[in-house]
Amino acid sequence: MAAGEQVADDTGRLETFADGVMAIAITLLILEVHVPSVAGRSLGIALARQWPSYAGFLVSFLTIGIIWVNHHHMFKLIARTNHTFLMLNVLFLMTICVLPWPTALVADYVRNPDGRIVATVVYGGVMSSIAVMFNVVWRYAATNHRLLVAGISDEALTKMSRNYLAGPIVYGTATLIAFIQPYISLAIFAALAVYWLLPGTGPRADVLTGRR
Amino acid sequence: MAAGEQVADDTGRLETFADGVMAIAITLLILEVHVPSVAGRSLGIALARQWPSYAGFLVSFLTIGIIWVNHHHMFKLIARTNHTFLMLNVLFLMTICVLPWPTALVADYVRNPDGRIVATVVYGGVMSSIAVMFNVVWRYAATNHRLLVAGISDEALTKMSRNYLAGPIVYGTATLIAFIQPYISLAIFAALAVYWLLPGTGPRADVLTGRR
Amino acid sequence: MAAGEQVADDTGRLETFADGVMAIAITLLILEVHVPSVAGRSLGIALARQWPSYAGFLVSFLTIGIIWVNHHHMFKLIARTNHTFLMLNVLFLMTICVLPWPTALVADYVRNPDGRIVATVVYGGVMSSIAVMFNVVWRYAATNHRLLVAGISDEALTKMSRNYLAGPIVYGTATLIAFIQPYISLAIFAALAVYWLLPGTGPRADVLTGRR
Amino acid sequence: MAAGEQVADDTGRLETFADGVMAIAITLLILEVHVPSVAGRSLGIALARQWPSYAGFLVSFLTIGIIWVNHHHMFKLIARTNHTFLMLNVLFLMTICVLPWPTALVADYVRNPDGRIVATVVYGGVMSSIAVMFNVVWRYAATNHRLLVAGISDEALTKMSRNYLAGPIVYGTATLIAFIQPYISLAIFAALAVYWLLPGTGPRADVLTGRR
Repeated sequence: MAAGEQVADDTGRLETFADGVMAIAITLLILEVHVPSVAGRSLGIALARQWPSYAGFLVSFLTIGIIWVNHHHMFKLIARTNHTFLMLNVLFLMTICVLPWPTALVADYVRNPDGRIVATVVYGGVMSSIAVMFNVVWRYAATNHRLLVAGISDEALTKMSRNYLAGPIVYGTATLIAFIQPYISLAIFAALAVYWLLPGTGPRADVLTGRR
Repeated sequence: MAAGEQVADDTGRLETFADGVMAIAITLLILEVHVPSVAGRSLGIALARQWPSYAGFLVSFLTIGIIWVNHHHMFKLIARTNHTFLMLNVLFLMTICVLPWPTALVADYVRNPDGRIVATVVYGGVMSSIAVMFNVVWRYAATNHRLLVAGISDEALTKMSRNYLAGPIVYGTATLIAFIQPYISLAIFAALAVYWLLPGTGPRADVLTGRR
Repeated sequence: MAAGEQVADDTGRLETFADGVMAIAITLLILEVHVPSVAGRSLGIALARQWPSYAGFLVSFLTIGIIWVNHHHMFKLIARTNHTFLMLNVLFLMTICVLPWPTALVADYVRNPDGRIVATVVYGGVMSSIAVMFNVVWRYAATNHRLLVAGISDEALTKMSRNYLAGPIVYGTATLIAFIQPYISLAIFAALAVYWLLPGTGPRADVLTGRR
Repeated sequence: MAAGEQVADDTGRLETFADGVMAIAITLLILEVHVPSVAGRSLGIALARQWPSYAGFLVSFLTIGIIWVNHHHMFKLIARTNHTFLMLNVLFLMTICVLPWPTALVADYVRNPDGRIVATVVYGGVMSSIAVMFNVVWRYAATNHRLLVAGISDEALTKMSRNYLAGPIVYGTATLIAFIQPYISLAIFAALAVYWLLPGTGPRADVLTGRR
């Protein structure tokens, strides 16, 4: 009983820290959207010309939001932490914290034919590393039910692990495409953010509740 | 019983994340108020000339504060979350996170006769989108009592939904006025922030407690 | 019982939001300490010449830290919230959020004989407004035991209210002194931050526990 | 019973505030990594030349992450707070909040032969002060079991206190080395961050659980 409570507190503080980091990273994104310094008459045009900043803000914001929702779902299945798991979460959060930087990079260079590819590859690399670390965190917790709550079937676990693999695969592919067609790559990142926003595309927590 | 607890935890983590995002967005507003770089003798005048920054800070701070209080009240009536509801909250939080940017935009261009209208319309557009998303979040939760706690009458629900509609209507109207009279528009945003600060104008949680 | 729990949750979310805002405001202070851009050989001197930035960071950090500790103590005695109380807390948090700005202002102008007074008066004004709002929040909650936990004697309340008054009085006085002797004024703000850091100077929560 | 609960709440709010501050400090680090402003063709090279910024981000991020994990472990053993302990934690958090600034300093001056030593010494000084304050916080709580949970043996305490001492010693030594060989000093900071990331190097919470 006492042990059970300690465990709850354990993931509790990790979740609070993770929520804090994700909340700050998502909010800092707006700092990369600048106020143009122009004559009043051209303000409308100057604002319109900043569309890559808005698009970058939108896609990165939705992506972090979706990661938060997924992290949230994942932690419903996790009952314990240990030193390695905490450290893996720190590494996972690091990839998320990096995101405002390549977002600004893409916004600045997307219209520059010479810089576009490098900027998009960096952006895709960070997006892919977020997806990879999400899987590393999950697999560490799930292997041999190491840190999971009781009552999850092996089939359910296998299915979840397979679903989560979609992230690194699609983000990795979009990053490879960036080497040749950066606009298509960015369109894929945007489409993924919108797609996962849709009802019915999210992770299923009924893995657990279905068994109760 | 176990299910009930899980549900509480559910909205708990959403509330923590939302509180974090709103706390950061509200605190970042001060970053847009600059320290003037002038000769010492003119510091007083330079600070006085920055009044649009202070006014913008004040109105946007109070607005986010009021939204936080209302979000707080709303969540007393919400018992469950689901994927769609989490995503709608992410979109709602996105509109709040944007606010520091048009606040700085208005502060920079309000004294510029040519840029004033564009800046104010953008500000109003963001304010209106916050109010719209607040209503979307509420209506998703309230429709057919989808995610609500037990014990709220249909009349109480209808009344709340009607009250919440005031936001999009007044903010939308103020935004339309900005196309012609930006100063009047800004005065309305300021007046609304002060009005909702007053005792007795807030939402009523007795919708629920009145029934117990 | 159910009502009691709801109340606990109530101040809980307010405390989370307040802690978030204070944690962010205190952390943003470092953004005002800049990295000098000089030739390598003069880096040591350039860093030393930045002492007003470090002093400002230190005093403002300790002040927000002390306010957080006091807010923390105050909320041990508060059991309920209402719309007005939430709004007063929003206004209180606003004064804290402002602090990074006058801190940078003083750091920039403290060595400028012509700007020193204005900068210090602004700093003192913000410090005083924090102290005033802290008292407003407390007095609203304490008047007629409006929002307090049970079991606090009237004498204990009166004593606490008197103790809290020290803040506005000393900060207000230090602000008035700034009009004539800004350095003395700043020395008082620094001394107060250090003094309240000392053991035995903090607020007493035994107001409550002494009665139990 | 009631007293026990109040105590739990006590460290709870301190942990929330500490988590918030550490989450923000860790996330602000990315703001010091800039988007280069160059012709598109040289973007790749400009990004590569920014390696000190990435290295600084990485080392400081991992260091704060490791401190968070250790703080987390420490607080499993702490049951109560008092005024002095809260204030010591505020001072501890201050040293962490400072870290983004020397991180940027090192990134800017590490390739400058004349500025390298000063920058590294400042960085090491801040790292050392974090480690010192961590020990101060722990020793205040542990002396005579002042604020600890029940059931920790004196031998376990002595062992923990000895383990925690490693921090100030290695960071202090690395700082002294910076006066002569700044690159070696920085390599030590990086190596420590990576070393403590490894499984099996973390603090042991079984101090407590082993006794139950």
